Amino acid sequence: MFDFGKILKVNVFGASHAPDIGVLITGIPKGEKIDFDELLSFMKRRAPGNNPFSTPRKEDDIPEFITGIENGVTSGEPIKAIIKNTNVKSKDYGNLEFVPRPGHADYTAYIKYGGKEDMRGGGKFSGRLTAPICIAGGIIKQILARRGIFMGAHIFAVHGIKDDRFSPTDVSLKDFENVWQKDFPVINDQKGEAIKQEILKYKEQKNSVGGIVECSVTGVPAGIGEPMFYGVENQMSSAMFAIPAVKGIEFGAGFDASEMTGSENNDDFYFDGEVVKTKTNNCGGILGGITNGMPINFKVAFKPTPSIALPQTSIDISEKKETTLEIKGRHDPCIVQRAVPVVEAVSAMVLYDMLLQDEALKNRKEE
Amino acid sequence: MFDFGKILKVNVFGASHAPDIGVLITGIPKGEKIDFDELLSFMKRRAPGNNPFSTPRKEDDIPEFITGIENGVTSGEPIKAIIKNTNVKSKDYGNLEFVPRPGHADYTAYIKYGGKEDMRGGGKFSGRLTAPICIAGGIIKQILARRGIFMGAHIFAVHGIKDDRFSPTDVSLKDFENVWQKDFPVINDQKGEAIKQEILKYKEQKNSVGGIVECSVTGVPAGIGEPMFYGVENQMSSAMFAIPAVKGIEFGAGFDASEMTGSENNDDFYFDGEVVKTKTNNCGGILGGITNGMPINFKVAFKPTPSIALPQTSIDISEKKETTLEIKGRHDPCIVQRAVPVVEAVSAMVLYDMLLQDEALKNRKEE
Amino acid sequence: MFDFGKILKVNVFGASHAPDIGVLITGIPKGEKIDFDELLSFMKRRAPGNNPFSTPRKEDDIPEFITGIENGVTSGEPIKAIIKNTNVKSKDYGNLEFVPRPGHADYTAYIKYGGKEDMRGGGKFSGRLTAPICIAGGIIKQILARRGIFMGAHIFAVHGIKDDRFSPTDVSLKDFENVWQKDFPVINDQKGEAIKQEILKYKEQKNSVGGIVECSVTGVPAGIGEPMFYGVENQMSSAMFAIPAVKGIEFGAGFDASEMTGSENNDDFYFDGEVVKTKTNNCGGILGGITNGMPINFKVAFKPTPSIALPQTSIDISEKKETTLEIKGRHDPCIVQRAVPVVEAVSAMVLYDMLLQDEALKNRKEE
Amino acid sequence: MFDFGKILKVNVFGASHAPDIGVLITGIPKGEKIDFDELLSFMKRRAPGNNPFSTPRKEDDIPEFITGIENGVTSGEPIKAIIKNTNVKSKDYGNLEFVPRPGHADYTAYIKYGGKEDMRGGGKFSGRLTAPICIAGGIIKQILARRGIFMGAHIFAVHGIKDDRFSPTDVSLKDFENVWQKDFPVINDQKGEAIKQEILKYKEQKNSVGGIVECSVTGVPAGIGEPMFYGVENQMSSAMFAIPAVKGIEFGAGFDASEMTGSENNDDFYFDGEVVKTKTNNCGGILGGITNGMPINFKVAFKPTPSIALPQTSIDISEKKETTLEIKGRHDPCIVQRAVPVVEAVSAMVLYDMLLQDEALKNRKEE
Repeated sequence: MFDFGKILKVNVFGASHAPDIGVLITGIPKGEKIDFDELLSFMKRRAPGNNPFSTPRKEDDIPEFITGIENGVTSGEPIKAIIKNTNVKSKDYGNLEFVPRPGHADYTAYIKYGGKEDMRGGGKFSGRLTAPICIAGGIIKQILARRGIFMGAHIFAVHGIKDDRFSPTDVSLKDFENVWQKDFPVINDQKGEAIKQEILKYKEQKNSVGGIVECSVTGVPAGIGEPMFYGVENQMSSAMFAIPAVKGIEFGAGFDASEMTGSENNDDFYFDGEVVKTKTNNCGGILGGITNGMPINFKVAFKPTPSIALPQTSIDISEKKETTLEIKGRHDPCIVQRAVPVVEAVSAMVLYDMLLQDEALKNRKEE
Repeated sequence: MFDFGKILKVNVFGASHAPDIGVLITGIPKGEKIDFDELLSFMKRRAPGNNPFSTPRKEDDIPEFITGIENGVTSGEPIKAIIKNTNVKSKDYGNLEFVPRPGHADYTAYIKYGGKEDMRGGGKFSGRLTAPICIAGGIIKQILARRGIFMGAHIFAVHGIKDDRFSPTDVSLKDFENVWQKDFPVINDQKGEAIKQEILKYKEQKNSVGGIVECSVTGVPAGIGEPMFYGVENQMSSAMFAIPAVKGIEFGAGFDASEMTGSENNDDFYFDGEVVKTKTNNCGGILGGITNGMPINFKVAFKPTPSIALPQTSIDISEKKETTLEIKGRHDPCIVQRAVPVVEAVSAMVLYDMLLQDEALKNRKEE
Repeated sequence: MFDFGKILKVNVFGASHAPDIGVLITGIPKGEKIDFDELLSFMKRRAPGNNPFSTPRKEDDIPEFITGIENGVTSGEPIKAIIKNTNVKSKDYGNLEFVPRPGHADYTAYIKYGGKEDMRGGGKFSGRLTAPICIAGGIIKQILARRGIFMGAHIFAVHGIKDDRFSPTDVSLKDFENVWQKDFPVINDQKGEAIKQEILKYKEQKNSVGGIVECSVTGVPAGIGEPMFYGVENQMSSAMFAIPAVKGIEFGAGFDASEMTGSENNDDFYFDGEVVKTKTNNCGGILGGITNGMPINFKVAFKPTPSIALPQTSIDISEKKETTLEIKGRHDPCIVQRAVPVVEAVSAMVLYDMLLQDEALKNRKEE
Repeated sequence: MFDFGKILKVNVFGASHAPDIGVLITGIPKGEKIDFDELLSFMKRRAPGNNPFSTPRKEDDIPEFITGIENGVTSGEPIKAIIKNTNVKSKDYGNLEFVPRPGHADYTAYIKYGGKEDMRGGGKFSGRLTAPICIAGGIIKQILARRGIFMGAHIFAVHGIKDDRFSPTDVSLKDFENVWQKDFPVINDQKGEAIKQEILKYKEQKNSVGGIVECSVTGVPAGIGEPMFYGVENQMSSAMFAIPAVKGIEFGAGFDASEMTGSENNDDFYFDGEVVKTKTNNCGGILGGITNGMPINFKVAFKPTPSIALPQTSIDISEKKETTLEIKGRHDPCIVQRAVPVVEAVSAMVLYDMLLQDEALKNRKEE
């Protein structure tokens, strides 16, 4: 259940009560240089910040490489990396251990895995498991960058308040770098300020808000992907729903395309010198499941953090009656900003696996 | 590329120039009764109608079972079914054979598969390959129905004009049957009339329109799905993008959830007698990738049919210059109504495969 | 169950009562030339001969390519090839339909698939399904030959009467060609004569005999295979047991190695110019699951054809009592000679799939 | 490369220079009781003994369960177990670091993984990784035992000196227990004494010897396995070659069947009360890849330990010349006795995975 991929294989492990969480990765060729500092700064983008928009919980997510990387270079062996669980204390759920939190996986975990000790899912559904995903994705981002492939994401919207968009046709590494270096990853800082205010407003109300992450990928050659079940959209969507709280995904114009006409939505081809491009990019860089050489573009919808401090109605499963639940502890009033690098990491995993498959078959005309 | 599934395996084959298209299915237990008439009437819902909303092309998609079904009962062997290609004539693309149609997979097929004969993708990207998917899905729908599991879909919107929605919490087989028996599958016929007018309007303009299909599934027990990479959303989204023209998918409130607060979006639990239910169903019946026993609900966005009769700008790849393209032939001005049963078929395949996996492990508390 | 492979995918379909048998192949890159005459002459080696050593049954196994090969070149699409079943008549089992033939899959097919119509397995276990395997393997042999990779097999032994062996260290294409052009594929024709006499002797006694096929593969570069579960021996053995009647496989010295000392069995390294070789080849070209650049060598044990004309003791499952069975019809007194090209075909499939995986990762030092 | 299985998934990790080795297991249902003492005593059978037949090296292979087992019961979550590497010291290979040991994976690891640090394969090919396999297999043996399925193995031969065989038709749990409790796992202690002498004789000569392990499995219902590529023999052989030094496998009469006639080899059916049995079991309990309800029986050939103290001829890869190699350190003069429980463990993994698949489809008549 925690394993991803066909040639690249990423296997996430760990639980909140275990000594560590981590990831096993196979299918990365030997000889790839990994810059540890760059990985750390990538992972830091996911860590809760010293700002009021995320949980004040402290997590020092320093990955430790056990096997597969020697002197900063992959050895071709399985890569195993862990993050130690420094703060392993059983949470105090008081008498609420049989009360599933609305919007959480508590109830489904209870049905699936059983007894009371699992009402909180043993950490299996924890957003914390996105840290190992960022280890894998962070390494792969470095490998892809050397092939000229870059992926950048930003907060596109929170509670309906929108940032600018990446240009569907002309986004560049510079646009990505602009966002990567920010504490609060938006394109337009003024709009980012409005988004921050929105988050703070609902935080004060002991509530939370959802949002949308936009991600673009540049440099992927045309011809990646297979028709029908193994297209880019199939693989990308399947992997994105591994990120907790994701409830939707759309490529290019996506749901907006459903409100368009063919003449509006079709992307006209043209020659930019020798290179085939499209004037618009409503298809998000993918036609028939296969990349067309334009930037890949998609948006991922996140629901609001289900943990809110407001009292909520739930049930007590052992006593078979309704009850009121108040969730203690400190939570992210919005997880969208912390999800931004996770979306990049997952997209890196997906595209790298597909590029490796392409390497095997070379079923692609070099333009 | 044309194969789906883990225990259930569905392998679609065929091309427009081959004598037949069809499907190989393994992983269906022996002893399942298959009602051929019911399958035919399911497949008819996908066929182009005798109405002005779909292409006037004639397709008699009568599936023929070669192996795996004997006397109307599955034998446990691989099921092979074909549909004969009665009308195999090479299309006349005139001097446009090197001109990719905007919005189509022509250009990506050319990059992927090569020579001029493949500029039209050899039929690999044809919507016609959804017919074999409907054979597989149609059979499986019958098997699931005997377990009390039903899936129904309808046109939710076309070019922004909306039908009603299925109730997220109280949809029933009767609601599905209501739609199944209609030529034009909407819930609310008055709204359906407006949708028809919208399609006709753009048809007259030699244009096309996109839309959204909503699908609900009832009767799936709580506890189906695995965390992270093998949840219902992962599997369902991956398979849905196999349907041509799909550009987005959302579960429950989906993208709308990104504009909600936690207190609005969280679905409160309650007891309906002994049964655990939720008062709302913004999660679409899935929490942490796992079903919670409520109806599964999702929407799939379709782009407008890319084939339009209006002149379009494209390029001539062999001559390396821009050109104008006029697509001849008769096309669906909107494919959404024909996609409705395909969405049902794919959802049946996905859930059946997941139920078979569940059978293996039985990692689930019976409520 | 009938599908093979990870990147190369070979899916065998058909049954004796269906109009055709065949194979679906994906994962072969576009642009590979396929010589149809060469394929036919490869497949002819599997066909029952006009000699007394195989069944006099007539099979004109002419493969017909439906998709994936255009003008003698692969298009990158799935390859579908069929062989028409010309002689589809339900066999007359008389009152023996509930009597499983000893040594056959009748009883296990009955347990697995059920009713009386399946007591003969519906053809699922028929040696005839090795014809589609030879289509796939025959195509792939041609592709591998262009990369300098060749595989040749011969009858190593029948009922204990032995042919010569290929040199474990110095076998060449010439050695293979020598065997390929023979009706009765042995290295040493004098020993072949003794083997023929042995087969005829038991044929006259209405009995059958088993034997061993030896196969060598040259030209595979060092470094193919992965440790533990994905080594060459793992993949090769798994696939070889798909051939009916195979009961054992050994690589290099194999079972003989169990009677050797370390100093006898270890293959000493030396330099042949710049090339690393071993003086002996008891490891069969594989160390730690990975090729070492020497010829790959293995032997496959076949049990005697279970269909014999002698009366045998069996049971009547419907009447729950013992009975005597006499099998009518004409059968191969020994299937080993016809299995020879099938072993080559399967080894081609296995190594090609592994080479494709190697292409993806390139985790290998070019010597 | 280190992952096994389809529904049951076993992923082995670790290296000799890492802090631990271990295993990740998914696909084991929740609620299975695991007896830790029983697991320990199973694993002890693999540990080097306090006798002169195995290496005097000390390994305290105490598995530690990190996740997936709570209070001695599986939770349905992934099971992660580790064995700490207590004795992590880089081996001193002196000036021999570029000299591959004959019979070892040194050379192929060098080609595959590169630099000098990998000439010894980084532990990837180490027999030590069979310890995590025994954790997985040991757990699964307990689960299968509760379903009445038992597997027992013994030394069948060493350097041609043979033990007795398990009865192919009438082996029982008692026969297995008889072997399990012995330090030196043979059926006939007198023959075991001869085998011990043989091992000691070659040990004194600074040499090593190979051998054969026989394994029987009882209680597997008829009908497990699929035709062609997913039969029991396919899966079992593929997995057995994951054990270092395995060079051959045969089922039932195996290679001996190649010297038999049909009338000798065919196993006649009879009724034992209501139960269908065969009088002989030359097929090893498997017909057409599917179990027939008789004991499953197979033999696995091991080559002699390649590490011997005698001087051997090899090459120095960096200096491109031949050289003489003397391997220091203490090695098993014969690894067959330690491989016995590993063969049981692997067979448990294979059959459990196949039983889980069977659970999903239930394509099997209950006798």
